[in-house]
Amino acid sequence: MSRPRPSTAAAAIVRGDRRALAKAITAVESGAPAGDALLRELYPRTGRIPIVGLTGPLGVGKSSLINLLVAHLRSNGRSVGVVAVDPSSPFSGGSVLGDRIRLDRRADDPGIFFRSMASRGASGGLADATRDVARLLEAAGFDVVLVETVGSGQVDVAIRGVATTRVVVLVPHLGDEVQTLKAGLFEIADVFCVNKSDLPGAETAERDLAELASLGPAPDGWRARIVRTSTTAPSGIPQLWSAIEAHEAFLAASPAHAAERRRRLEEEIVGRVREEVARRLAERLETDPALRRLVDRVLARELDPRTAAERLVAPGHRGR
Amino acid sequence: MSRPRPSTAAAAIVRGDRRALAKAITAVESGAPAGDALLRELYPRTGRIPIVGLTGPLGVGKSSLINLLVAHLRSNGRSVGVVAVDPSSPFSGGSVLGDRIRLDRRADDPGIFFRSMASRGASGGLADATRDVARLLEAAGFDVVLVETVGSGQVDVAIRGVATTRVVVLVPHLGDEVQTLKAGLFEIADVFCVNKSDLPGAETAERDLAELASLGPAPDGWRARIVRTSTTAPSGIPQLWSAIEAHEAFLAASPAHAAERRRRLEEEIVGRVREEVARRLAERLETDPALRRLVDRVLARELDPRTAAERLVAPGHRGR
Repeated sequence: MSRPRPSTAAAAIVRGDRRALAKAITAVESGAPAGDALLRELYPRTGRIPIVGLTGPLGVGKSSLINLLVAHLRSNGRSVGVVAVDPSSPFSGGSVLGDRIRLDRRADDPGIFFRSMASRGASGGLADATRDVARLLEAAGFDVVLVETVGSGQVDVAIRGVATTRVVVLVPHLGDEVQTLKAGLFEIADVFCVNKSDLPGAETAERDLAELASLGPAPDGWRARIVRTSTTAPSGIPQLWSAIEAHEAFLAASPAHAAERRRRLEEEIVGRVREEVARRLAERLETDPALRRLVDRVLARELDPRTAAERLVAPGHRGR
Repeated sequence: MSRPRPSTAAAAIVRGDRRALAKAITAVESGAPAGDALLRELYPRTGRIPIVGLTGPLGVGKSSLINLLVAHLRSNGRSVGVVAVDPSSPFSGGSVLGDRIRLDRRADDPGIFFRSMASRGASGGLADATRDVARLLEAAGFDVVLVETVGSGQVDVAIRGVATTRVVVLVPHLGDEVQTLKAGLFEIADVFCVNKSDLPGAETAERDLAELASLGPAPDGWRARIVRTSTTAPSGIPQLWSAIEAHEAFLAASPAHAAERRRRLEEEIVGRVREEVARRLAERLETDPALRRLVDRVLARELDPRTAAERLVAPGHRGR
């Protein structure tokens, strides 16, 4: 397939222009057409690097851990893009993460790029935007992307399709929590990180998790690894990265992975079709008298919403 | 419009058969076709009663408050259906609300019906199911439906389109919280309930909220009311119900309300079309070779997901 010449913006991103990258991310976050065009153009340059998702409850030290992970990767010559996903909530009235400085930015190191993302409402939209920002970072030449999410159920579920390796960060003294973890976290964790392992109980926590992990491998054949880390007297960081790399190597060799990649892309395409259909229909509801009459009938309880929707899906409908 | 004879199940629900109602709710929750058929049939019987959403952080006493509100309504001869929406979370490993008995069921009173709903993942799906269950309750003859949600941002946002009156439940000593509340909660609250008002600080909390409320009425012209309640030495419950009724009366008289009802129905119809389109497309991805080739090209990075989706939305596409 012949490719058109790259646009100025795409060329700038690819050659490492950080301002062009930041601008593109803003466009993607806000859903601007410029972001869309760039993602189309840069898509061939994506899909090869590890996208590591780090998730876990508030207060387990994810940000410090990411700081150390970034330092470790830099000392091994790898460039790192960090995306902190910060779901806004009506109850927190804005940013869960707030204004605290979340990462030692090392502004003078071009091998690190940090971006915090916030989005109200649509958790699906946040996942899409995160995936797209990770693609921009890859196109910009970063070797690894780390995605940090706060452990609020809905967002994590939405984000889980974005990462290639998912790390769940916990702290010692899980106690009863380990029992409840069974139901949900094992499905999403490729690596467990017991952080603050200098606290008493770290060994027990590790043992408990190992016991759970031994209950059986995930459907794809990978058995979750468990790593102990500390960020106060830093330890375990190289081991954490090794566990992540082991999972990435497993993926590369796994036939299940190809199927999973296909499934994710299908999901993305279906999602885009769904949103585009909804967008067009919402537009027509404003302007098309036949559609307005259909809604009138639903309002008058002459027709139910299910039947109305069916008529709109049926090919060749005229909003009868 | 001529209506067919009601089905046996619909007739049973309408005449007050509680087992038929419970069965229908289960069908709706699980997305079974039987639930769909019932909702189509019963739709003309819906859209008239107050659907009161009560939301707020964990631990503010929503369940006790609902118990007392139900008792108040019963003593006034009103029947009440209660829906407790219980988002499952990967981190809680299941039910946030857990197994604790959440409502004094008064199993011997046919004027009360309680149902707890849980759903993993899709918050949109949970809102749809809640709206549909409220419709079943209305068709079954209940005078009021109360919907309780736990204050986790995403779910509240999703649920907010379901309730006709939204009550946000808080406790004294809001402190800094009041500031952060500004951003999010005022948009969704028609009534503020300061519960545990026997605790010190209740007056201050009420004053702070009143000050915020005075900053201006909502877009529809309603100014949020503030009510103090206690559930230990019960007080304020009639006042809480009066505030809810005042909002319902406001809605009935408000021209903005008709527009809002239309907007919600349009949203529901668009949502159903979107999901149906996605369902059909996902099916075709399994079976249609042209579509499989399209995905192959996206996997090979020859085509980007946006362009692929566009081709699928375009009328008359063949999955080129």
